[in-house]
Amino acid sequence: MTRLMQCVPNFSEGRDQVIIGAIADAIRSQPVYLLDIHTDADHHRTVMTCAGEPQAVSEATFRAAQVAVKLINLEMHQGVHPRIGAVDVVPFVPMRDVSMSECVDVARGFGQRVARELDIPVFLYEHAALQSERKALPDVRRGGYEGLRETITGMLERKPDYGEAKLGNAGAMIVGAREPLIAFNVYLDTADVTIARSIAMAVRESGGGLPHVRAIGVMVRGRAQVSMNLTDFRQTSLFQLMERLTLEASMLGVQIVESELVGLTPQAALIDCALEYLKLPKQVRGQTLEARVGSFNGDYREIPFG
Amino acid sequence: MTRLMQCVPNFSEGRDQVIIGAIADAIRSQPVYLLDIHTDADHHRTVMTCAGEPQAVSEATFRAAQVAVKLINLEMHQGVHPRIGAVDVVPFVPMRDVSMSECVDVARGFGQRVARELDIPVFLYEHAALQSERKALPDVRRGGYEGLRETITGMLERKPDYGEAKLGNAGAMIVGAREPLIAFNVYLDTADVTIARSIAMAVRESGGGLPHVRAIGVMVRGRAQVSMNLTDFRQTSLFQLMERLTLEASMLGVQIVESELVGLTPQAALIDCALEYLKLPKQVRGQTLEARVGSFNGDYREIPFG
Repeated sequence: MTRLMQCVPNFSEGRDQVIIGAIADAIRSQPVYLLDIHTDADHHRTVMTCAGEPQAVSEATFRAAQVAVKLINLEMHQGVHPRIGAVDVVPFVPMRDVSMSECVDVARGFGQRVARELDIPVFLYEHAALQSERKALPDVRRGGYEGLRETITGMLERKPDYGEAKLGNAGAMIVGAREPLIAFNVYLDTADVTIARSIAMAVRESGGGLPHVRAIGVMVRGRAQVSMNLTDFRQTSLFQLMERLTLEASMLGVQIVESELVGLTPQAALIDCALEYLKLPKQVRGQTLEARVGSFNGDYREIPFG
Repeated sequence: MTRLMQCVPNFSEGRDQVIIGAIADAIRSQPVYLLDIHTDADHHRTVMTCAGEPQAVSEATFRAAQVAVKLINLEMHQGVHPRIGAVDVVPFVPMRDVSMSECVDVARGFGQRVARELDIPVFLYEHAALQSERKALPDVRRGGYEGLRETITGMLERKPDYGEAKLGNAGAMIVGAREPLIAFNVYLDTADVTIARSIAMAVRESGGGLPHVRAIGVMVRGRAQVSMNLTDFRQTSLFQLMERLTLEASMLGVQIVESELVGLTPQAALIDCALEYLKLPKQVRGQTLEARVGSFNGDYREIPFG
């Protein structure tokens, strides 16, 4: 079994299929799995998920970035999702037989190359951060492209980690290493975005809500949406998040109509959610047919339990 | 990848570890995966799950039955779970590249051999049934060992499908082929078994509850338990079952404290439950990292999604 590092680059283009296709083709030019493409016209954003050997993933993502910074102009970009760059965020994620520290190394090498070869200022975040104030993505992205354009040249705290402190039409890039993240959005039965914002404020960590939850309220296709990132599903589960959302929504007199996952989710996050809802103990995780057959590795004599 | 048929024999012994060990060793003597052993002292019952090539699974189960009918005496057996035999139920289940009709063939061959070589009367049920009144397991098992002992010689409708109409200390055996079954039990915060029985009556198909649900109310370790079989989780989901249980419990002023799964559960049943709870569409099933990587089969160039 080959080692797998995952990379989930976010591009500030969710409408032009020609541009999205060109970026995807750049990833496909390398020997990596392009696992998912999630395009959202309202967010005006596309999230691609690829996985493979660490160096191949880094190369594939670099080629995609090369295409994206050429084709995406942030001066023309409007969307409900905050962003500071054509290639907005590039997280490297451990997946199979890859450590977080290897992801950090790959992220920093990737960032240096982007600054050098693409002339894009790079900010390092999460586990790859060189400055503690840059650990959290929202702190790095605060003010968006427009805000950064005003401050990058003058303010020392907005100076990039790699590259020159100046911004072109492709903006900056936020590169890092992190745990698997779950991007989970719920739609409300209201067109009042202030209600979505209130719920977002109540559930997110920065508002005193649940740890490891980031949330914003936005309008998507005429409906209010709470758009969330769950950055550690083992600490705060999808079940806990949904319970809290349901409670906050009902207190404001609205309901959750449907939900969506952006990009790919670790299977364990869904299974853990089912166990919690069903009041089953965590050890039931290993009590599926698939888990048991998988644990044998083909040897009948092995006893994988009790 | 080898073809997999599953067999989930239920033995009427949940206390004597020597007997349970001897039965398990009989299964392990054959080239099959012994995936799970679930022992319950109150139910006085052990459920083993094995999987492998159809003929190997049939042989392993036969050897286990041979040991069990020698060591288990139903005249001495008391437990809260209904049963008519030392080896009470033997279902063969399709798992990987095996059809239901092949399971039916294996079940009938197994049943004939049991009648012939072990001198045990055999009733065929579910997809392997030869008589339509014997499709449902509870109908075949009605009255238990004690009831069958009274009626097997005299009543034509209790005549076994294979073997002589007489009962020894090892009782009879119910053999069949079925879809994967989920054995799901919930514990209530009461010691009043009549409440568990009321809930069981309300949720089960035969009481006008949910399709594909069988349920009884029993006492286990001083707590009232609703003990259930969900025979088709694609038609009635674990989510729907839990919602209904929670509702019925609250109407009777009790709560579900915790739950358990007996034996192994298909992963899809847990993932579907999470999706329903989270209000996610069913296509999210394929939106896990594991599903996507698995779908590639090692070829980077393949694109497993739309």
